[in-house]
Amino acid sequence: MKHTISVLVSNKPGVLARCAGLFARRGFNIDSLAVSITEDDTVSRITLTVEGDDLTLEQICNQLEKLVDVIAVLDHTNDAVVERELCLCKVEVPTGKRSEIIELCNIFRGECVDVGNGNLVFEVTGDEEKIDAFVRLMSEYGITEMVRTGKVVVVRGMQPT
Amino acid sequence: MKHTISVLVSNKPGVLARCAGLFARRGFNIDSLAVSITEDDTVSRITLTVEGDDLTLEQICNQLEKLVDVIAVLDHTNDAVVERELCLCKVEVPTGKRSEIIELCNIFRGECVDVGNGNLVFEVTGDEEKIDAFVRLMSEYGITEMVRTGKVVVVRGMQPT
Repeated sequence: MKHTISVLVSNKPGVLARCAGLFARRGFNIDSLAVSITEDDTVSRITLTVEGDDLTLEQICNQLEKLVDVIAVLDHTNDAVVERELCLCKVEVPTGKRSEIIELCNIFRGECVDVGNGNLVFEVTGDEEKIDAFVRLMSEYGITEMVRTGKVVVVRGMQPT
Repeated sequence: MKHTISVLVSNKPGVLARCAGLFARRGFNIDSLAVSITEDDTVSRITLTVEGDDLTLEQICNQLEKLVDVIAVLDHTNDAVVERELCLCKVEVPTGKRSEIIELCNIFRGECVDVGNGNLVFEVTGDEEKIDAFVRLMSEYGITEMVRTGKVVVVRGMQPT
């Protein structure tokens, strides 16, 4: 099962390496990970997705909480969340296909952020499935470079009671 | 000076921990980091920003390249790149201020992705400075939760010759 976990940590060197090391020692592959500052300069927020069984993941979360400089660990598996990911995708444009490709991008509410010699760079945001679908579609034309941020989540404001 | 580095690695457990550990041992604080799959399932792409002098960074890049499972290391400091970051931001909405806040979000071409009891969740994409400006603006109303993906970059298609 896929889990999404948020880890709030002190913004200090080495904290990320310790957290990632904990998963590595158990042989878990982190599918995606995003870390950046939060509204508080001294705190960073790590959002990671990882595949594994519930029990082992719970143990890892407990161990993460015990690490120095880890402030909080939240498993979002059962939360109602808004999840988003950003993708930058450089696509080859065969002669006469530019309008067609831009039209497809518009359907995904993507934005064309750069035009080059025979290529276009698109920015698309959405959940994982949407990005996957966009990438699949564009791969038919030929993707020369692609980068994704990995998922970030925020708990919805109105929780079901 | 701030450096943005892309690291292409094999999609295996432990690779991220080794890369992050290399920065940690030198006492470098990684400001932001995003890792996700690429167009090739077996390859992950790590994009990280780190502050430090040119010489030491060059040494670290050289050492990264020597690590097992690291395929390529690219320092984008002098490249013409498209850079983007995504931010999800939950903002408190005082009575009667909703339209005002949504209007500000529209100026940043953000999108309201959730409406809760007395709060709104916005999605904004752009470069670091734009996100910083948006967060500064929203913090006047009160940010209850915020998460950023960290910067990702793609080299522009048309390089200056």
